[in-house]
This record gives sequence, structure tokens and C-alpha cells, in this order.
Amino acid sequence: MFNLKRVKNFDPTLYLVTDQMLAKGRPVEFIVEQAAKGGATMVQLREKDCSTLDFVNLAILIKKLLDSYHIPLIINDRLDVALASDADGLHIGQEDMPYTIARKILGKNKIIGLSVENIEQAKVADEFDVDYIGLSPVFVTGTKPELTNSLGLEGVRRIASFSKHCMVAIGGIHAKNAAEVLKAGANGLAVVSAIVSADDPMKATREIRQEIDKFKTAGKSEPG
Amino acid sequence: MFNLKRVKNFDPTLYLVTDQMLAKGRPVEFIVEQAAKGGATMVQLREKDCSTLDFVNLAILIKKLLDSYHIPLIINDRLDVALASDADGLHIGQEDMPYTIARKILGKNKIIGLSVENIEQAKVADEFDVDYIGLSPVFVTGTKPELTNSLGLEGVRRIASFSKHCMVAIGGIHAKNAAEVLKAGANGLAVVSAIVSADDPMKATREIRQEIDKFKTAGKSEPG
Repeated sequence: MFNLKRVKNFDPTLYLVTDQMLAKGRPVEFIVEQAAKGGATMVQLREKDCSTLDFVNLAILIKKLLDSYHIPLIINDRLDVALASDADGLHIGQEDMPYTIARKILGKNKIIGLSVENIEQAKVADEFDVDYIGLSPVFVTGTKPELTNSLGLEGVRRIASFSKHCMVAIGGIHAKNAAEVLKAGANGLAVVSAIVSADDPMKATREIRQEIDKFKTAGKSEPG
Repeated sequence: MFNLKRVKNFDPTLYLVTDQMLAKGRPVEFIVEQAAKGGATMVQLREKDCSTLDFVNLAILIKKLLDSYHIPLIINDRLDVALASDADGLHIGQEDMPYTIARKILGKNKIIGLSVENIEQAKVADEFDVDYIGLSPVFVTGTKPELTNSLGLEGVRRIASFSKHCMVAIGGIHAKNAAEVLKAGANGLAVVSAIVSADDPMKATREIRQEIDKFKTAGKSEPG
């Protein structure tokens, strides 16, 4: 379906997005490893409030950790950190580096994902060869309080009706609503607080992963 | 003296470092152009509180402006912005990207400057092929209130006694103390508020430049 497999193991089925502020004092590497063990298929490091040096050092640490699980690492916003850690890709928002510049610098062998917050941005994204679009936010969430207009399931359905891209939904996703977001057309689910803030991040990841696998298995057994 | 002229026109004689917060509401491009007209020889864009997109767009704008004056543009901290704008170089502090990684990514044809805040850091910097070191801060300043230990003229003299690098002094420098900082051993002066906050940034730049030129001319006319 999506042939842009620039990176081996590219698989946004269950995509952990980190947030140190939501980790209840636990280190990011702990959350990431628990999620890897629980069935996360991709990880995005999102660190807004640390020095470049700390971000680079963290990214190098997490890259090594995820390599041992054969899970790709994506860096949020900071192309410099992605290059410094030899991460597998970059995730950019609408206020980050323009896609065309990012692709030129990163080259064709790295993953680039782009957040879209509405139909218009999803249409613009269709003109780029991004590897996935992040539909953000599907539901209103405490992680990004500045985004007041959620896409909702209807927004996911509308974008799914035309977008050529692999679509990862993000924002307020957890085990109980995972199936309906996939049913609306998302190809993968990005999860922040339902894993990062969970008392047991591995168990939380496993529960979401089971819902995804259940949905996909059911889909395959349905006629057509 | 310093043969590491990776970039044509590399000249840190009078090095403007921007700070939008100190510009009294005037746009950065205005300050930069006034400084260029007044005799600045290099410019560093330092923007800590804007989105990556805004920083990239500003850097592209300033790069084009400075190219017309044949003045190199250096980006503070953000290697991604330096790459995106094809800036002439990067300035890194002790909490930024490690020098060796930055050099590997930027290649040998870009300027890299490194801030050193004490003798120990200046000794470590001597092991790298940075293009200049920024001695920071020479005097206590309101621009970086977190740096409470200023090097003073004595610190400049001590570092000048052993460093192999081109040395740019920064922190509290203005027309009235320019000569004594150069006398202490600095090869160039980096200026923030004395230009950025000046009522007439071009005039302020010219006054500092005149002090520098006067010092250098006097040095040349002295015997030995």
C-alpha cells in the first residue's frame, strides 16, 4: 500500500511519542524500553524544554536502545538532533522546518512525517512525498492544550477519503478508542499520555497493541 | 595568523550578535542592516524563543541581506537552521551540540565558533579545530544574567597566553571599553546590546568600529 519504506522496519502501527513532562518523574529511556517490550513499533522523541546537548545525548541513548529492538527512532522538530543521533527520521509540525528543506537536508533514505491539523493542510501534504501524515489532534487532549480544534473521527474519515499518505492519528488515543480510530481510516496510532503517564507503560502499550491487532485480524477475516 | 579561513570574508573584528528581546520592537533585519552599514564584519543570529519555522525564515532573509554586504552569517546553537539557510557557520555554547558532531555534519567548509566561559574550557577547545572561541562573558551583562562569573580582562589575558584560536570577546562590550578588551588579547569583539538596543544602531556600530580601527592602527605604528 505505502511503498515509501525508506527505513527498514518502518511501521507506525503503534507509535509512542514521548513527553518528559508526562512521565511522572521516570526517565524517558525507561518509558521507551517498556513501550518497546509492550509492542510499540515506532518511537518519536519529543523534547521541547531541554538544551540541544541534552536532547542530542538523549537521542543517541534512545537510538542505541531502539536499535536493539529493531524499532525506528523519529525526532520531533529538531533536524539537527536527528542528524546528530543518526535517527531514522524526523517529525515536523506546521511551525517547524518546511518539508522541502528538511527532505533536501535529510536525503531520501530517512523517514519524514508531517503533522496536519485540518483538511486544508492534509491536501497540501498530498503534494509532498512525506512518509506519513500525523492527524493531530483526533481528540482534545491535555498534551497540546493550544490545539482546541480536534479533527474527530469525522476528520480522520474525510482525510482518509483523499490522502495518498500513510495516516497516523494522534491525540487522546488509548486502548478503549483505538479500534474506532482505525475504523475511521487511520493506518497507525500515535500515543502519548496513555503510555507515558501509565503506571505500567509496558502493560498499557500491550493493551493498545492488542486492540490494534484485534482490529486488523477482524478486518482480514471480513469478506472483501 | 589564523589560517582556518573556511569562508571567504571570515572576519570577527566586529561581530554583531542579535537578540530580538533587546531590539526595542524593531525587526532583527533592521538592526542587522544598520550594523552592516556601520561596519560590522560578521553577524550571529541568536533566537531562543521562536518556532523553528520562524527561525529558518528569518535566517534565510538575513543570509540574503548579508550576502549583499559580503558579511558572513553565523547561526547560534541551531545546526538545523544553519543548514536550512545555508549560513556560513554555527556558534555553539557548552550546552549545545558537541563540537565534534557539529563539525562532522557541517563539514570543513563552514565556520564553527565555540563559547568558553573559563580557562578549563578554553584548554579543551584548544584540542578542536574550531574557527574561533567566544570568551563569554568578559563583563557581567544583562543579556545573559545566568552567567555570574565574568572572565574580566585578566581572564582574556590568561586565555590569550595559551590559546591557539582566534578569540572573540563577548559580554558588556561597547565603544568605551573596546580598546582595553583588544589590548587584553581579543582578536575580535562581539557586541549585543550596545548595538541592538542603541537608538541608532548604525551610529553605535560605527563608534565601536572606529575604536577598533584606532587600536589596530596604533598597534601597527608602535615599534615591534
